[in-house]
Order: sequence, then C-alpha cells, then structure tokens
Amino acid sequence: MEFHTENESYQPVEKLCVLAPGLLGASVAMACRKNRTAHSIAIWSRRASSRAKLMGQTWCDEVSDDPSKAAADADIVVICTPVDFIVPVYNEIRSSLKPGSIVTDVGSTKSVICRQANAANGSNSNFVGSHPMAGSEKTSMDHADEDLFVNKPCIVTPLENSNDASVRQIIRFWKSLGALTFVKTPEDHDEIVAHISHLPHLLASSLCHFLDKRPADWEPLTSSGLHDSTRIASGDPSLWKAIFETNRDEIKRALSNYQDELQRIQSALTNNNMVELVSILEKAKKYRDRLS
Amino acid sequence: MEFHTENESYQPVEKLCVLAPGLLGASVAMACRKNRTAHSIAIWSRRASSRAKLMGQTWCDEVSDDPSKAAADADIVVICTPVDFIVPVYNEIRSSLKPGSIVTDVGSTKSVICRQANAANGSNSNFVGSHPMAGSEKTSMDHADEDLFVNKPCIVTPLENSNDASVRQIIRFWKSLGALTFVKTPEDHDEIVAHISHLPHLLASSLCHFLDKRPADWEPLTSSGLHDSTRIASGDPSLWKAIFETNRDEIKRALSNYQDELQRIQSALTNNNMVELVSILEKAKKYRDRLS
Repeated sequence: MEFHTENESYQPVEKLCVLAPGLLGASVAMACRKNRTAHSIAIWSRRASSRAKLMGQTWCDEVSDDPSKAAADADIVVICTPVDFIVPVYNEIRSSLKPGSIVTDVGSTKSVICRQANAANGSNSNFVGSHPMAGSEKTSMDHADEDLFVNKPCIVTPLENSNDASVRQIIRFWKSLGALTFVKTPEDHDEIVAHISHLPHLLASSLCHFLDKRPADWEPLTSSGLHDSTRIASGDPSLWKAIFETNRDEIKRALSNYQDELQRIQSALTNNNMVELVSILEKAKKYRDRLS
Repeated sequence: MEFHTENESYQPVEKLCVLAPGLLGASVAMACRKNRTAHSIAIWSRRASSRAKLMGQTWCDEVSDDPSKAAADADIVVICTPVDFIVPVYNEIRSSLKPGSIVTDVGSTKSVICRQANAANGSNSNFVGSHPMAGSEKTSMDHADEDLFVNKPCIVTPLENSNDASVRQIIRFWKSLGALTFVKTPEDHDEIVAHISHLPHLLASSLCHFLDKRPADWEPLTSSGLHDSTRIASGDPSLWKAIFETNRDEIKRALSNYQDELQRIQSALTNNNMVELVSILEKAKKYRDRLS
C-alpha cells in the first residue's frame, strides 16, 4: 500500500476530538494545539477528576462527559482509550458523527480493532487505525508532552474498505504532529509489533518476575544495565493484558521462535562454543548500533 | 562477612596506580583526583596513543609504558584491564610491589580472578577483588566520568587469605569515590551478577540477534522501549566473551532457570490464562518499581 502525501500540506481542521486524555490522548491534544492542527479541541473524559484538570488547559477548548457529544461535530476523532475500549467507544459515537468525519485511534494492536470497527461499515469506512510508537511506562495526563510524537514512528493501518481520502488525511494529521508515518496492513502491523514491542515487554516482565524470586538483598546491587533493560516492565498490567489478548497468536509465535534462539545460546554455553557466542554478540551489536 | 568502616575516615594515600585507562580506569583516576583520594596518580597504558592522550590530563601525574614500573611504589593499584588480562597483569607486577601495597581490580567476574590471583599468595594476600557496577556499553577513556561511581554499587570480594586491613582499605577507597560498597564472597558475587547483569546482557543480545533476522524495514518502526531494553547489547563482544568464559557455570544455570520462566509465560498464552499472565505482569511491575 502506498499513500504519497509528500506534496500535500496539512490544512488545519475546524474541530478535533480526543476521547480519553491519558498520556497519549493529552499529548495528542497538546501537540495539535502547538502545531495548529485544529482550530478547536474537544476532549471527553470518563472521570470527573480528569475533566476538572482539563478545565483551563490551554490545549483544551471543550470538556465533555459524553463521548458522542464531544465527537458530534468533529472533523477528526482520536480514540485514546486502552485497547479493549476502542471499539466499544467507536460503536457508541459512530451514529452521532457528522458526514465526512474521520475516526482514528492510538491502540497498540490493530487487526482486531480495525476489523471490528469496520465490520459494520461498507466501503468508504471512516475508521482508519493508527499506532504512534511513542508510549511509555507512564500512563497519565501528567506526563503528557506536546513533542511526544516528534520523529517517532506512527503506523497507519487502513483496511480494504477504508476511504482513500480519509487515509491520506490521517497520514497528514500525524505528520503535522512531527511523526514519521508508515502504512501497513493491520495484520502486518501486529506481526511486527509482536516482535519489536510485545516480545521485548514480555522479556522485561519475565526477567523481573524471575529476579523477584531471588534474595531481596540482591536488589541494591543492580545497576543501570538491568534498570534500562527492564524499564518497560513498569507499564500498567491492565493495559498490557488487553494488548496480549488482542495479539495473542502473533506474540505466541514470536516468543516460541525467540525461545529457540535462547536455546541456541544455552547450547553454545554448554558446549563452550565461544566462536558461536561471539558471532551472536557481534551481530547483535551491529543491529543495536544501527538503531541508535 | 562483615567489615564495618563507618567510623573510619579515608586518609589519602601517597600514590595510586591505575593499570589500563579505559572507561573504568580513567574514571577511577578522575574520581581519585576530584576526591583527593591520592596525592599522586600513575597510569600505565599498553597503547602509545592512550599514553599520548594521558599527557597533560589534570588527573594523571605519571604516564608509563611498563606496568611494573608504574605500580612499583604505589600504595593502591587498580587493575582495569578486560577480565582476561587481570591475573596476567597482576602476576607481572606482583614482584615489583612495595611492602604494604594493595591491589584491586574492576572485573565483572570474581571467582576465577580472585582464586588465581591469590593462589601464589599465602595468608595476608594483598589482592582484594572489586566490582564497581558502573559500566556502560561505552568503553573508551573519552567517556570517562569523575562521578561514575557516585551512588553506584561496588562489590568487594575478599578471600579467606585476604589481609583484613587491606579489605577495609579497599572498602574505604571505593567509598571515597562515592560508591555504595557491599562485601560478598567471589562465588556469591558470581551467582548474583550472573542473574542481574550477565543474563540481562544475554537476553538483550539474543533479542537483537533474533530481530536482525527479520525484515530490515522493521527497524525504523522500533521505539524507545526496544531501544532501552537492548542498549547493553552494544557492549564490546570481546569484553563480554571473557565475562561469559569466566562465569559460564553460573550463567548457564541462570539462563536455564529463566528458560523455565519463559515457558511458563508461553503456556499462559497458549492456554489463554490471563489471570496467570496478569499476576506475572503485576509482580514484575512491583519489582521494577522498587528498583527506581
């Protein structure tokens, strides 16, 4: 799939709606204000405490306790709830949307979400999935950042029945916030993030769970290497549960293949095959150095 | 083993000698200058280019191309070579040392090094192993930092024949550089670091090696979660080879037990046992949050 938007400048929309202002939702709103992506920004939050916080924020023009009302006259709606609430929220608001309105999301898995969201739509669906790879182990609005998406990858995942113009608009939208956009099918997206995001999360969590069973007086001896390599294990378990549930097959496959990789290292250690071990370390270093 | 040095203030020594000024060696010299840990600092480097760089550094009073000469009249000698060169260098300098001189090192494994270094010593050995947990994937003098050891753990590993006064002096020495000191047997040290340092390194390297075999166009999609969790895989393969060689049994044991842990996660995914998976994620998060 190719969508060339290089020569298309982004025109600010009249109204943007953010549903659920956590780390990502609040960052979307702040980034839209900074980059003049929309003239007006409406935000729905389920929680009264969040709505109170939103009052008087320079990046929020309208606070609502009803997602359908917040989204009703928006040109672009960004659903920023946890993964397992994206489709329910979409189904709740869809009949209230004005003609031409486009809906996207920021969920970490895409196949289930995009298929379910588009199931009731014919051709020209107004739902276009997105996944900005800019999360963090932190989750609340308090950590939001107007530059969160700058130079970060954002994967846009249209389906066969996605309206072409809507897809291009969502790509331009993320670009306007500074993101580096990529287009993948939802299935390709899920295979990729199972490897580059969900598997690393499982490894960090399982390592922490493993070390938690060791003597407590080992903890003060840990250093930045372990701290950095397990930072993501501080992520919210309920958010990750929903991610694992909606991408279970791809994660299982990735983990199974990774277990074979680990067994290869165990064999190299057992056989004192340092040539093999150094070859792995060298290829790993080259790969990691390229990411920097 | 308990060594109480709380009430013993550190008295600057006349001369400190650093053998091999890489990241750790140069940082030791810089930290000693800053903290007035020694009146005079002599450094040996094998490489002419490093010796040229040392000339005129404020934290180096004497540059030598001969480790025995550099160490000859030092009160404390810190061997900062890669793990596999520590004992050969110690054996080269030992006959040149003045009476009362104490030798330590910064190696990431301790049993092999301490046993071999002390093998030819009777009671009152002057070799006391150390492992400041302050490394980095960077290795050269250019990244050295006078505050590298501040609030970082440093494990001191005396043997049965280590001179008590020497052990206390080495503990005070690391404390003078800001480190948090702990005393362990070399065997306990090696078991602990196999879990909290060497296993995490293997996981990061194996994950990079695994992802290196996937399509290259996945690389631009990676984000800070993967980057942080694999940073240590950029470490120097030859340094890590020596670490794995000298701590192979403990690392094999830790990796084998960790593989069982991963299999437990694979089973939870296969059986769609989200209760089990969430329980692991929650315990992991609590452990990781405690380290911060």
